[in-house]
Amino acid sequence: MTTNRQWLLDNRPQGQPSPANFRLVEAPIPEIGPGEVLVRNHYLSLDPYMRGRMDDSKSYSAPQPLGQVMLGGTAGEVLESRDPAFQPGDQVVGSLGWQQYGKCKGAALRKVDTSRVPLSVYLGAAGMPGVTAWVGLNTIIAPKAGETVVVSAASGAVGAVVGQLAKLKGCRVVGVAGGPQKCRAVVEEFGFDACVDYKAGRLRADLKAAAPDGIDGNFENVGGVVLDTILTQMNAFGRIAVCGLISGYSGEPMPVDNFRAILISRLKVQGFIVSEHMEHWPAALGELTGLIASGRLKYRETIAEGIESAPEAFIGLLQGRNFGKQLVRLA
Amino acid sequence: MTTNRQWLLDNRPQGQPSPANFRLVEAPIPEIGPGEVLVRNHYLSLDPYMRGRMDDSKSYSAPQPLGQVMLGGTAGEVLESRDPAFQPGDQVVGSLGWQQYGKCKGAALRKVDTSRVPLSVYLGAAGMPGVTAWVGLNTIIAPKAGETVVVSAASGAVGAVVGQLAKLKGCRVVGVAGGPQKCRAVVEEFGFDACVDYKAGRLRADLKAAAPDGIDGNFENVGGVVLDTILTQMNAFGRIAVCGLISGYSGEPMPVDNFRAILISRLKVQGFIVSEHMEHWPAALGELTGLIASGRLKYRETIAEGIESAPEAFIGLLQGRNFGKQLVRLA
Repeated sequence: MTTNRQWLLDNRPQGQPSPANFRLVEAPIPEIGPGEVLVRNHYLSLDPYMRGRMDDSKSYSAPQPLGQVMLGGTAGEVLESRDPAFQPGDQVVGSLGWQQYGKCKGAALRKVDTSRVPLSVYLGAAGMPGVTAWVGLNTIIAPKAGETVVVSAASGAVGAVVGQLAKLKGCRVVGVAGGPQKCRAVVEEFGFDACVDYKAGRLRADLKAAAPDGIDGNFENVGGVVLDTILTQMNAFGRIAVCGLISGYSGEPMPVDNFRAILISRLKVQGFIVSEHMEHWPAALGELTGLIASGRLKYRETIAEGIESAPEAFIGLLQGRNFGKQLVRLA
Repeated sequence: MTTNRQWLLDNRPQGQPSPANFRLVEAPIPEIGPGEVLVRNHYLSLDPYMRGRMDDSKSYSAPQPLGQVMLGGTAGEVLESRDPAFQPGDQVVGSLGWQQYGKCKGAALRKVDTSRVPLSVYLGAAGMPGVTAWVGLNTIIAPKAGETVVVSAASGAVGAVVGQLAKLKGCRVVGVAGGPQKCRAVVEEFGFDACVDYKAGRLRADLKAAAPDGIDGNFENVGGVVLDTILTQMNAFGRIAVCGLISGYSGEPMPVDNFRAILISRLKVQGFIVSEHMEHWPAALGELTGLIASGRLKYRETIAEGIESAPEAFIGLLQGRNFGKQLVRLA
């Protein structure tokens, strides 16, 4: 332990990102100042929103600067602390980015109880993706028992939680995912009532069959054709929480032909970013952690091994190669 | 006065409606039963929503049946009443459709005070279009002083009211309308801060110049390119009230390319139909009538003369040939 390997953003992608956009460097392990904590990262979180940060265009956050460590959520162990609230050995979640070691103020870390839930899960169902699911479902869709909720990217870190929370509320829950394997797991592992394979080429008919009474709520992670098809099957006063539009993150055209459904069915369509709803985090994390600890909320992880694997794992995530939460485990 | 001339829907339009979709017939003046009121219509209201009813497809209301009197709002005078709440000579607003005389239960009529506001205006700024403006602006956009609100079809019956109400709330108000004449009147008569001529071919640049701080609220009556351009200029947490999409009412494709703005700017986009917000009608009508009576809310009317003129006037409305509220005055 003498050096810190880090992935920097080297240059911005044109369209799909490639490994050449990133650069692996070695740096000294940082010294900490007063109030700071040094953490050894055990897991890096890879999330679709990172694609947006790689661009230099208007979005909801500042772009990731070139030549800097790729941003991102992390889970690890405190090595050294000059904040009295943290002790070496504490398990913590933070935002230290794509590197083996990082430091920050103690206030930017959250201590987690790995006796209830494994450390990695605090980056998934018991972390930002879980809270994202909770906020979009509860504050925008607000489904009632008996309503039908459709979740795209249903096998992903967010989608799987959305569907399970909606089931607990007594909804009929339909997933949309890519390929028969993912669809089977969405039903069998996560307990969705049905899951439509958007790659099978019968999206409209399959969705109609899976949601025969129409759709009251849509938690949208994908956009494009999936969203456009869902729009035509929304019931009056339906709600669409726009959480992600991964089908267009690399600049792909993503025309929506059925916008008029918003008028015809008097829909509410609302975009949101979980970090702007901090007031809900404590309640959401409490509920999610409890459900996971008691086995009522399932999760899956796709784990890439070693810091070297981060760019490829991230690109795979954008292409849907992951199942559940995409992580990188550090040695 | 022995016959009642009526416009029936004869056949459904393919695309743009034409006069051949309607048939003018003569019928006896109806006899009234207990609780009913006979009204002589003085004004027919023509409104864009009627185009949707002419189709036999899924929308928020049942289609207009073929061979029946075209539906629509009306203002007129009670001729005969078997409801003790109404007397001959009362001025009333109702939904008696495209005909000279009509009957209905008294409960379906609203007595209006023409000493404060002319009868025709109860079909416009002091009627359904005015309440539509009020509901969309107050319940969906809910603008704060200093925010920028953009209104499409700004010279129309609804748009002109939206803009004036938003000005009264201290907003910067920008209209979008077709042609320099309409745009000039929107600014000079209705007091908008600016108005962009969408026919001038510089929509994006002109809108940017008129709304230099971005757009916080959009009251959308048009859809298509106008909406798509507005989407790209919305500020974070903007609200779009989708009231109408007249650019696509005859089946024109209306792709929205910039749907991703809903996520990037965390917008709320909501469709609504004024008849589903009856709880707001009394407050809205009270406020609107007061503002009109005191001269603080302006309106314009385009009046076609005679029952024969209804189809052409309606087609003109869909093509934007009207200015302000489109009415038909009956002899």
